[in-house]
Amino acid sequence: MVNVGIIGVTGYTGQELIRILLRHPQVNIAGLFSRSSFGKPINVLFPEFDGRLSLVCQSPEAENICRKCDLVFLALPHTASMKLAVKLAKKRIRIIDLSADYRIKDPKVYAKFYSVKHVDLGGLKRAVYGLPELNREKIKNAALVANPGCYPTAAILALAPLAYVKGMDLSSVIIDAKSGVSGAGKKIAESFLFSEANEDFKAYKVGVHQHAPEINQELSKMSKRKVEALFVPHLLPLNRGILETIYVRRNRRGTGISLIDLYAKFYKKEPFVRVRKDGDMPRLKDVVHTNFCDIGVKDLGKNIVLVSAIDNLLKGASGQAVQNMNIMCGFPERQGLL
Amino acid sequence: MVNVGIIGVTGYTGQELIRILLRHPQVNIAGLFSRSSFGKPINVLFPEFDGRLSLVCQSPEAENICRKCDLVFLALPHTASMKLAVKLAKKRIRIIDLSADYRIKDPKVYAKFYSVKHVDLGGLKRAVYGLPELNREKIKNAALVANPGCYPTAAILALAPLAYVKGMDLSSVIIDAKSGVSGAGKKIAESFLFSEANEDFKAYKVGVHQHAPEINQELSKMSKRKVEALFVPHLLPLNRGILETIYVRRNRRGTGISLIDLYAKFYKKEPFVRVRKDGDMPRLKDVVHTNFCDIGVKDLGKNIVLVSAIDNLLKGASGQAVQNMNIMCGFPERQGLL
Amino acid sequence: MVNVGIIGVTGYTGQELIRILLRHPQVNIAGLFSRSSFGKPINVLFPEFDGRLSLVCQSPEAENICRKCDLVFLALPHTASMKLAVKLAKKRIRIIDLSADYRIKDPKVYAKFYSVKHVDLGGLKRAVYGLPELNREKIKNAALVANPGCYPTAAILALAPLAYVKGMDLSSVIIDAKSGVSGAGKKIAESFLFSEANEDFKAYKVGVHQHAPEINQELSKMSKRKVEALFVPHLLPLNRGILETIYVRRNRRGTGISLIDLYAKFYKKEPFVRVRKDGDMPRLKDVVHTNFCDIGVKDLGKNIVLVSAIDNLLKGASGQAVQNMNIMCGFPERQGLL
Amino acid sequence: MVNVGIIGVTGYTGQELIRILLRHPQVNIAGLFSRSSFGKPINVLFPEFDGRLSLVCQSPEAENICRKCDLVFLALPHTASMKLAVKLAKKRIRIIDLSADYRIKDPKVYAKFYSVKHVDLGGLKRAVYGLPELNREKIKNAALVANPGCYPTAAILALAPLAYVKGMDLSSVIIDAKSGVSGAGKKIAESFLFSEANEDFKAYKVGVHQHAPEINQELSKMSKRKVEALFVPHLLPLNRGILETIYVRRNRRGTGISLIDLYAKFYKKEPFVRVRKDGDMPRLKDVVHTNFCDIGVKDLGKNIVLVSAIDNLLKGASGQAVQNMNIMCGFPERQGLL
Repeated sequence: MVNVGIIGVTGYTGQELIRILLRHPQVNIAGLFSRSSFGKPINVLFPEFDGRLSLVCQSPEAENICRKCDLVFLALPHTASMKLAVKLAKKRIRIIDLSADYRIKDPKVYAKFYSVKHVDLGGLKRAVYGLPELNREKIKNAALVANPGCYPTAAILALAPLAYVKGMDLSSVIIDAKSGVSGAGKKIAESFLFSEANEDFKAYKVGVHQHAPEINQELSKMSKRKVEALFVPHLLPLNRGILETIYVRRNRRGTGISLIDLYAKFYKKEPFVRVRKDGDMPRLKDVVHTNFCDIGVKDLGKNIVLVSAIDNLLKGASGQAVQNMNIMCGFPERQGLL
Repeated sequence: MVNVGIIGVTGYTGQELIRILLRHPQVNIAGLFSRSSFGKPINVLFPEFDGRLSLVCQSPEAENICRKCDLVFLALPHTASMKLAVKLAKKRIRIIDLSADYRIKDPKVYAKFYSVKHVDLGGLKRAVYGLPELNREKIKNAALVANPGCYPTAAILALAPLAYVKGMDLSSVIIDAKSGVSGAGKKIAESFLFSEANEDFKAYKVGVHQHAPEINQELSKMSKRKVEALFVPHLLPLNRGILETIYVRRNRRGTGISLIDLYAKFYKKEPFVRVRKDGDMPRLKDVVHTNFCDIGVKDLGKNIVLVSAIDNLLKGASGQAVQNMNIMCGFPERQGLL
Repeated sequence: MVNVGIIGVTGYTGQELIRILLRHPQVNIAGLFSRSSFGKPINVLFPEFDGRLSLVCQSPEAENICRKCDLVFLALPHTASMKLAVKLAKKRIRIIDLSADYRIKDPKVYAKFYSVKHVDLGGLKRAVYGLPELNREKIKNAALVANPGCYPTAAILALAPLAYVKGMDLSSVIIDAKSGVSGAGKKIAESFLFSEANEDFKAYKVGVHQHAPEINQELSKMSKRKVEALFVPHLLPLNRGILETIYVRRNRRGTGISLIDLYAKFYKKEPFVRVRKDGDMPRLKDVVHTNFCDIGVKDLGKNIVLVSAIDNLLKGASGQAVQNMNIMCGFPERQGLL
Repeated sequence: MVNVGIIGVTGYTGQELIRILLRHPQVNIAGLFSRSSFGKPINVLFPEFDGRLSLVCQSPEAENICRKCDLVFLALPHTASMKLAVKLAKKRIRIIDLSADYRIKDPKVYAKFYSVKHVDLGGLKRAVYGLPELNREKIKNAALVANPGCYPTAAILALAPLAYVKGMDLSSVIIDAKSGVSGAGKKIAESFLFSEANEDFKAYKVGVHQHAPEINQELSKMSKRKVEALFVPHLLPLNRGILETIYVRRNRRGTGISLIDLYAKFYKKEPFVRVRKDGDMPRLKDVVHTNFCDIGVKDLGKNIVLVSAIDNLLKGASGQAVQNMNIMCGFPERQGLL
């Protein structure tokens, strides 16, 4: 049994964490923290929890948090997250940070894409990038886990197997990504109004989205080459889910090995990655409300088309955070997540 | 040819007015006015108009407006509307007001439901309630037309024929109304975020909605009895359209006359009201993007069920406003609206 | 541990049963049965189950079913259900029937609304109407449970407390019901195409829907008066959820007791009914993907407005079926359902 | 004034043609033809036309059609279209075919992608590919116009300007296309049910879609090189609209000319193509219910990202068909289309 706290409980990832943790047999939700909703019972904030959880939101002071919790999820906006994490770290509480603050290893790149100077370089250095499929061993003993971004999770899982295959031109990868509106969080802005987003579809931040450097960082590391993916996100008129269509060129002719077999083998033991058979392609319906990442592979000779699908609030955020918690605490990895 | 102006051009009803008027063969859009978007070209504000209209938004000063326009549409929030109308009236410009400011004849009722004191009692007295099916003759020469609310338009048109039938208990009418999200205007609030309204449905303002007194006022006037309809609005997860299901009790047995025939006859010459045959019920699909109100009638003996459907931005707002303009200017009533 | 079977596994209720039962700690899914998908693995039919369940669909023969299962869920169309149930009953296997076949006690009414003669009058007599809030004791030892319809579940739970209050005119209840499209099942017909139902809304089967007699039967029984509710269903453009707005008249002045308190008391110990406080009204968002029924009460003096919300696939079908199974097997009632 | 007929009036493109033509001041809808709905009035089939058009659907026999019409729109499935066209051609009636039958010039390619042998090679040879921006002069006098596919319209208009620019590697173009569900027509199949498509998103026919050869044919012709675009379509959960994100590589460094300027110049005189300024990207909202194609251009040096948006039922089908009719009849090109 682990006593967990959720800091920043009023957003979509905080709400999703509560949903998951209420079902987790080895978790006690020891505290909910929110500056804006301080003093309010969670079942009033979210009537869906009525009859199930009635904790009152507390002020997110480090002292207060550490008294109650062994492990915390930071579901805060970037910047706010590192400011709190630096204080919590001193108290030796384990942290899973769902913001972007500890994902980008190079503080200059962070500063460029998030328009703010990093204030916790020590934490940044120690933080483990929490993608279990790549870093399971390091996560086990991590004090601070940087939970990956939603777009990067889908992209990196789709591309990881190719990083170890010869003849793939990873440097010219194109990632055409589509996300449901909850990916933007509970941001109150005209673009995210129902009357604007419904029956609409558009690309945004073409070539300049802040998740691009995160994808490049991890793919470069894996493939030991400098990867500069072209990343183009789009806004889908639906609540949950990310689907990415990824285009990889071959540098030279294929070797005749089946990429589907290669993928199936690569992810054989993974509890939350599923490779579609026979060139079938994933659809959001199969992964939404689950922690799975479904991957489809179509080998067209000169080009390879990958399709990767996740629920942005689960494998792309809160589900993956709980998966990381399970690893950190020695629980079965699927616990609470099926 | 009439020179028209639109004041408050950045909301959904302003945008819809431009769409309609661009197609109207006897209208010259002489000016667009907006305080918040002053100085911006309309095709930058709304790229859908690019290549079709490039007027720059001007400051909504009465002098300025009257220099350019013979007739104006006020697509302003309530309160703002009457403040401007009182100035414009002095200049003898004809006004079609899409706000609620001139709909409620009793200033006390207005004050109660709109939380503000009325500042133009003279205008309020002169204003004609702009439902062409009831007030066509008065609209012809009106200087100031109060364009009806969206919910009231659907409700009043559905109930009007019964006001002249004996044995109907209009005092106990129940109006279960459902509106698409654009009915709320371009209001930037959590409730209207895509992630909140999509895949959701709920009742709101049960028994206290500000459109109830407007409905009661008109039905009481027609039926010469005090009508207090029970009005319950709901928010539909779609962009456009209002559908109301209306329940009327009979005081005594029916007389054997066919209500469908009665409705068909009542609306026979109306250019924008269609009575569905044989108890078929309307659907939003048939009226959205049109200025029609479709009405279905089901006589169950003790109860009568009426279903009324309109596009809230057209027959419920901007379309009806242009219909009123056509009547005021002596143009064919359907012009620009088919 | 109980060995359960699902007969008719390819529809939405069958799929939802699998989702729930995979999480239930005291259930072994012993067999999946389907005539149309005989021989196909469930993870091929529904890729969402890949990596979680790989049972092959078997032929739904009574012998075969009884060899493997202690309890079965019949997720079949009406008529098909009673034909199989009559055979299974002989084998003393416990049955939860999700079809309409055992809900209507009067075989003439059944024949009228379902256009087929009932073939198992013995079963019909023995069957317990599986609404736990009304019939918990009888369900415990039932051999055959008729799982209630989705619309009736929401309506009866909303109205049950009033059946015991004086001065309510239940005979003239009006139920304005709105359901998401999954309520129609996986029916392949033009009306249910995305391009037809999306951005549309309409009433259907006004006053003649087959769920009306089910509602009337149960309300009449409770209130010991003949209830003939006016039931008008509508089709909502969303996947899951039913919300009903219910209008009840008072025969005489209220007694001053608070209806909200009365409701809160009535449902105090119920694990899956929540009464909203202070006249707040339910929304679908709070109940979708849960087994809860949320009820709001607004007392307007002459009229009472009730709003009732459920997930049609959970409390309205498969969730309630598992709740019934929990009661029948002596498991905690919320097990697998939170 | 031209007398037009619509053959195959019950599908979405037929319905859309009626909507447009009812507004067109120089068109008389002389006949509606449908095999399946023979004898039914159009306002019963489509209540949206009630009060506006009440023609009865007639049998689509060539004799009958030619007696009434000067020009016909064939809104038929492929194969059916060429069978009728070959008969109509003998009568010297002008034809705009919205099916795929006359788009692919090579009958072998047609046979491969549409699984049927072409039966009108003469017509195929004479047919003009009806993309006004490329073939306006030929369309003027064409007897048979092959109205382009929806996906190809958006793709070809986006890529056409680059066909005349040096250094573009058109051979390796990637087209990531997303279409609303009406793009599939009124096809009654499980995939297109609301409960399946809503809140879902997926790729389909990856690398094998029948619109790929049409795109390649036209791009090869323009660029005088063999183009083999990689075309990946996806299904969007919305009614109308296609948005394509297109990736083009540069063979060598750019020349410093602004691509946006180049595009703006290329389409300067076009009545229905709009180039977005300053790298702004199009959104569906701006083109849906219009005949415009909006194009955005983002020059990233090594790669160029194009985004192209149309309404699949207008510029992608019926709107473009009327644009072609306007050209063929010498009417102003925008007539009836704004």
